[in-house]
Amino acid sequence: MQVRLDDLKAVTLTVLTNSGYPADEAHIILDVLLYAQLRGNNQGIVKLIGAGMPRSANARPIQITRETKLSALLDGGWNAGMVALTRAVDIAIGKAREHGIGIVGTNQTNTSTGAIGYYASRAAQAGFIAFVFSGSGEYVAMHGSHEPLFGTNPLAIAIPTTGQPIVFDMATSAIARFGIVEAKTAGRSIPEGVAYDANGQPTTDAAAALLGAIRTFGGYKGAALSLMVEVLTGALVSTTKDANGKKTDWGNLVLVIDPELLVDGDTFEERVSQLIERVKAAKRLPGVEDILIPGERGNRILAQVEQTGMVEIDDALWSALVAVAG
Amino acid sequence: MQVRLDDLKAVTLTVLTNSGYPADEAHIILDVLLYAQLRGNNQGIVKLIGAGMPRSANARPIQITRETKLSALLDGGWNAGMVALTRAVDIAIGKAREHGIGIVGTNQTNTSTGAIGYYASRAAQAGFIAFVFSGSGEYVAMHGSHEPLFGTNPLAIAIPTTGQPIVFDMATSAIARFGIVEAKTAGRSIPEGVAYDANGQPTTDAAAALLGAIRTFGGYKGAALSLMVEVLTGALVSTTKDANGKKTDWGNLVLVIDPELLVDGDTFEERVSQLIERVKAAKRLPGVEDILIPGERGNRILAQVEQTGMVEIDDALWSALVAVAG
Repeated sequence: MQVRLDDLKAVTLTVLTNSGYPADEAHIILDVLLYAQLRGNNQGIVKLIGAGMPRSANARPIQITRETKLSALLDGGWNAGMVALTRAVDIAIGKAREHGIGIVGTNQTNTSTGAIGYYASRAAQAGFIAFVFSGSGEYVAMHGSHEPLFGTNPLAIAIPTTGQPIVFDMATSAIARFGIVEAKTAGRSIPEGVAYDANGQPTTDAAAALLGAIRTFGGYKGAALSLMVEVLTGALVSTTKDANGKKTDWGNLVLVIDPELLVDGDTFEERVSQLIERVKAAKRLPGVEDILIPGERGNRILAQVEQTGMVEIDDALWSALVAVAG
Repeated sequence: MQVRLDDLKAVTLTVLTNSGYPADEAHIILDVLLYAQLRGNNQGIVKLIGAGMPRSANARPIQITRETKLSALLDGGWNAGMVALTRAVDIAIGKAREHGIGIVGTNQTNTSTGAIGYYASRAAQAGFIAFVFSGSGEYVAMHGSHEPLFGTNPLAIAIPTTGQPIVFDMATSAIARFGIVEAKTAGRSIPEGVAYDANGQPTTDAAAALLGAIRTFGGYKGAALSLMVEVLTGALVSTTKDANGKKTDWGNLVLVIDPELLVDGDTFEERVSQLIERVKAAKRLPGVEDILIPGERGNRILAQVEQTGMVEIDDALWSALVAVAG
């Protein structure tokens, strides 16, 4: 159904306020959720349904626990992952603006950071190249294994252009964990080849997959990338484990680079835009209407929303959000 | 057949000297080629067969054309890609050692950089996290297209541990271009789903694939990664194009990060080694003897070589190298 953007914002903000977030944090989370929701990405308001995202009773102020000109490590203080990672990317942008590069890690959060293209995009909108890596719980198995040890370990890369940034945001898992949770709720099966059950057998049963392990994407290459994200969001940012080796918190890492280090920024953005034009004009395979650049599909949906002030939302999802808002 | 390591080195060095390289450059290239050859990677001495790698008649000294504390851009001066990228990674290591991070790009080369895990490994051996991105000619098509615009665009990531570094080195193409060239020479077909012919039809014919385009790995995710490498090794490092938009040179980018920015280096290496142990001890799928960490297979082969002083090389390849040495 079509929902007014203003209504979507108001209802979402009400839910966040009811979830215990002070106004500043609620607005940060709203921004992250709407980045996804208005781009047709499934990391939007659905996160507020069911268990939702209540603010932790243990939340305390985010603190910088290690810092250099180029780097900072943040103790997320059990705040929402979205709040901690927004702080991290803003610090990294500040350091990149002053010194050329900023690298910032976070620990002591264990909630979703949402669509991490949001944070990368935030840096690219400011003219920087950004890499964002995000860790989570033990859901995904290494290539050759069916024991869940890794997070779904998304990575995002954003590149500024003369127009909208290129924003590439992918899970290194074959399917988002959330996609499996959704399938289970809807009573749907999941695609073949993306998950194992608890005995290590391939399964298309969502409930069985949640008790087993998700596979990485793209064979051993995807598994190797997942391992790299695991290191960059674990060992490097000092997340912790319990006595059984289970993660107690999930780390994140942001790397922001000023292209001016190597080339004039305007020249860089012009060249990237020229490359995009060339790629979009390339010979298409049969049945392909348009060659899409990462981020482009979402930008088109967003443009439609901005033009009409209306958002297409699944009926049941909107009803559920309104119900949660009370 | 089994070849003495000393003989392999001597013959390779002779070929490089005959190819016009002064002693210092010949030793650099030898090191890169043997890194691959002694690890069972196909980016080794086969590069010296056939057209080989003659030193360019236009080669001139490598020059730094832009520099900051954290960054440098190198004009490769039409030297071998391996010589230029070795210089780049050494400069990046020096900057990371002094300032925490080094980012170095190269342009004005258009020859193979070989197995780029070599350069990443060089930084990780020195205690740093390294990312290496390497561009090349127009061989690979974007997702949805069959027009070759991208290089095979490998990326390598290396992470220091208390033992051997983790070294992940992958092409973002579905198959290395060199693999297709080899298949054509041997009269073999190539796997399904990795290439198009000149008309955009899927092909398993190596010769037809060389006239068409290679696909990226891992669907749209792999294509998006390839595009990112294209930007990082093109627009960012100022490679150039001719009037038809064809690349005249191939760029490279090295990013070296001191983990000390975020955590004590020893602690980091210990944690990474613990993670490796945990991953290797994970439950294995049926038929899987051992869960391999990126770089491990090659390290095992190398260890065997170091123990015996002998290298297993394909008969025809060794004969061909000896013949080139004259």
